[in-house]
Amino acid sequence: MAAKTQVSFIGLGAMGFGMATNLLKEGYDVTGFDVWGPTLERFAKAGGRTATTPAEAVANKDYCVCMVATAQQANSVLLEGDNAAITTLPRGASVLLASTVPCEYVQGLEKELAHRGRGDILLVDCPVSGGATRAAEGTLSIMAGASDAAIDKGRELLQAMSDPAKLYIVKGGIGGGSNLKMCHQVLAANQILSASEAMGFASHLGLDLQETAKAIIASEGWSWMFEHRSPRMLDPNFQPLASAVTIILKDTSIITSEARRAKFPSPMTSAAEQVYFSSLGRGFGGDDDSSLIRMYTEGQGGKIGPVKGAAETDESKLKLVVDLLRGIHLCSAAETLAFAQHVGLDLDQVYDLCINAAGGSRMLSAVGQDIIRAFREGGLRQPWPAKDESSSLKAVAADLEAAVSEAQALKVPSFLGNQALNLMRLALRHGGDGTTEAAGSVVRVWSA
Amino acid sequence: MAAKTQVSFIGLGAMGFGMATNLLKEGYDVTGFDVWGPTLERFAKAGGRTATTPAEAVANKDYCVCMVATAQQANSVLLEGDNAAITTLPRGASVLLASTVPCEYVQGLEKELAHRGRGDILLVDCPVSGGATRAAEGTLSIMAGASDAAIDKGRELLQAMSDPAKLYIVKGGIGGGSNLKMCHQVLAANQILSASEAMGFASHLGLDLQETAKAIIASEGWSWMFEHRSPRMLDPNFQPLASAVTIILKDTSIITSEARRAKFPSPMTSAAEQVYFSSLGRGFGGDDDSSLIRMYTEGQGGKIGPVKGAAETDESKLKLVVDLLRGIHLCSAAETLAFAQHVGLDLDQVYDLCINAAGGSRMLSAVGQDIIRAFREGGLRQPWPAKDESSSLKAVAADLEAAVSEAQALKVPSFLGNQALNLMRLALRHGGDGTTEAAGSVVRVWSA
Repeated sequence: MAAKTQVSFIGLGAMGFGMATNLLKEGYDVTGFDVWGPTLERFAKAGGRTATTPAEAVANKDYCVCMVATAQQANSVLLEGDNAAITTLPRGASVLLASTVPCEYVQGLEKELAHRGRGDILLVDCPVSGGATRAAEGTLSIMAGASDAAIDKGRELLQAMSDPAKLYIVKGGIGGGSNLKMCHQVLAANQILSASEAMGFASHLGLDLQETAKAIIASEGWSWMFEHRSPRMLDPNFQPLASAVTIILKDTSIITSEARRAKFPSPMTSAAEQVYFSSLGRGFGGDDDSSLIRMYTEGQGGKIGPVKGAAETDESKLKLVVDLLRGIHLCSAAETLAFAQHVGLDLDQVYDLCINAAGGSRMLSAVGQDIIRAFREGGLRQPWPAKDESSSLKAVAADLEAAVSEAQALKVPSFLGNQALNLMRLALRHGGDGTTEAAGSVVRVWSA
Repeated sequence: MAAKTQVSFIGLGAMGFGMATNLLKEGYDVTGFDVWGPTLERFAKAGGRTATTPAEAVANKDYCVCMVATAQQANSVLLEGDNAAITTLPRGASVLLASTVPCEYVQGLEKELAHRGRGDILLVDCPVSGGATRAAEGTLSIMAGASDAAIDKGRELLQAMSDPAKLYIVKGGIGGGSNLKMCHQVLAANQILSASEAMGFASHLGLDLQETAKAIIASEGWSWMFEHRSPRMLDPNFQPLASAVTIILKDTSIITSEARRAKFPSPMTSAAEQVYFSSLGRGFGGDDDSSLIRMYTEGQGGKIGPVKGAAETDESKLKLVVDLLRGIHLCSAAETLAFAQHVGLDLDQVYDLCINAAGGSRMLSAVGQDIIRAFREGGLRQPWPAKDESSSLKAVAADLEAAVSEAQALKVPSFLGNQALNLMRLALRHGGDGTTEAAGSVVRVWSA
């Protein structure tokens, strides 16, 4: 009987614990490390070995998976001090960095390893997506970039942790995986908040929120995030706590800081980020991100005085909510693809990942492939025609404008809706006739 | 002895009361009307006559000044019901609408008067600026648009209420005065909030706020609004209450709704508006607008955990705060002038008004005339050179980027700073080499 492959696993949080126990189930001999003692005990009970330092965990193991929360933590466990992993990692070992970190960090890590004479380490930049349940099932989406040798060596473990259809090998080496995850998170950052913005708006409109959520899920305003957040949003205590505000804020800040580094404009994600920061100040950071509906529902119950919008029937109100989401999701799709193009990703791969993961939205499905074709053909300056009148940029902008006007009448903030409308207005001022061009051509605002 | 000229004055709020009592001092026979009884008693004590309905106030008077708070109120007192002014206004009477209202409203009012067979009324669209003290002194800024006949007839009263250097007769008839005021308020809306954003940032940086305010007033980050808001901002109770959040929010919503009507992008003002709406939800609407620093300082004192930015000395921290303001004020100046150009105002007049009123900022002074020249010469697509390296668009963007990065590190929202940076990045992606072109050329983002 062949000996089991030995793997060290650093970082046994909600995601890491599931991933590590899945590896146990898959027959690996896994030694876990975490700074939180009770987690280690739990891991031992699940059949894992434990270590008290990163150096101890990785010693003599040919594979190391690192799933800590931040780049700072990754740097600490891998490189810093006498107990760092680098002090004992065997020559030629495979290090799979699965944490979501800035491209800048993981590229710097590769250089730092070489600088310390450890260019032998086969680093894989492989952030994941899919949540704790899929982590424990070994069916995550994984975005992996590395040298061919590192991908070859790491492939078996990557496959053990991912859904076969959702293992994305990204061209461009180290940094590509992080960039792909980052572009996906543009959609996540905007669509987690748009769910709250839409439902907060619906609440001010006086709509029944249960019914509204159902209707949105069946509409062109659908997003994966909306479908997954709305049930918790409708729980009076925003339970169960599935993903805290601080988690999406961390990823959001990676996007905006990488955008700054690339001199790339990220107006949608930046607008979302400021609302996330505001919610931190309110003490909501540790709460489920569906609770951000509170950033829109405060002041109800008389504080802001009697107000009345233009919409009178539930049908017309619901249309405004859906149109708000359509407009926001159009611009989040455009920002995602323009950023992906800017950092040199394969846009087909980006689209395939996003549409099948937490970044999916009906608008991305509607406009994504046309935007990609336009980038490929260099056709951004030549707007392409809408399939029908209602899907033209002008029509989507007019629909969003009605929603934003109503939000104004009701005195409810619409951070993302206003941002999206202004971006459409910018696009319509810079080329294009607006009447017949497709909504996706809003992407020219972002592109050079 | 000649009889005194009889004037009716509708709306005796903080501004209107001062304006009306100034007219008494100037020798007019003024009959006041207000819905608030105690105000009428006070006006009688000051030597005025009083009326119990608008119709009673205006009967037999050749002049009517209307200084109510909103377009809705103006419509009510002038047109609606048996007691409306229109029922008794003498033929050929002069009506000076001094309230800040949307251009759309006052143009509609002119049409409605004609539609009701009262085209004889000499309507003047003449919003004012300058605050209650200047109202009482008769030294307001007044922006007046009307037919030549209406201006001729109204001139004496306009002069009685204004500083001679600050009476702006706007071309374009009815609507021009409101448009000029609106473009001025773009600066007000952004610079009231930027004062709070900068001081909130300074607070998170750990700077002494008294010293910081002094330093900002002497710096390129200066604005009229900052100088006037910062003393109240530093008062623990944000006293005295000089201008409530709801007042600037009303003007802000006029800007964004007129921008939507004109299909014009207003990304800076829209971003500010959403923060104002958020503050309403928090119950801050009736407080002085300097209190909006609270939208940035919440969460201090441990809630968001220990954080540390990159700036270490007070000098480097102060530079970040000033650079935040420079970047925001650059973009608020660009949005103002681009919007003024879009609605067909005389840009020299806009600049002259703004620079000498509450819209003034050091950045507007630095870039305003170059932007106007570029519009005049159709030169927006040909960026003009910076006077020196530090005033180039690239340099101002880099300085703002450092400030925004620091705000991110400190986890403090920077709504306007991020918006301004993204607009600069958009400008730099669309033409221009960025290295040597002047900061003001960011205006090309807004223009067709």
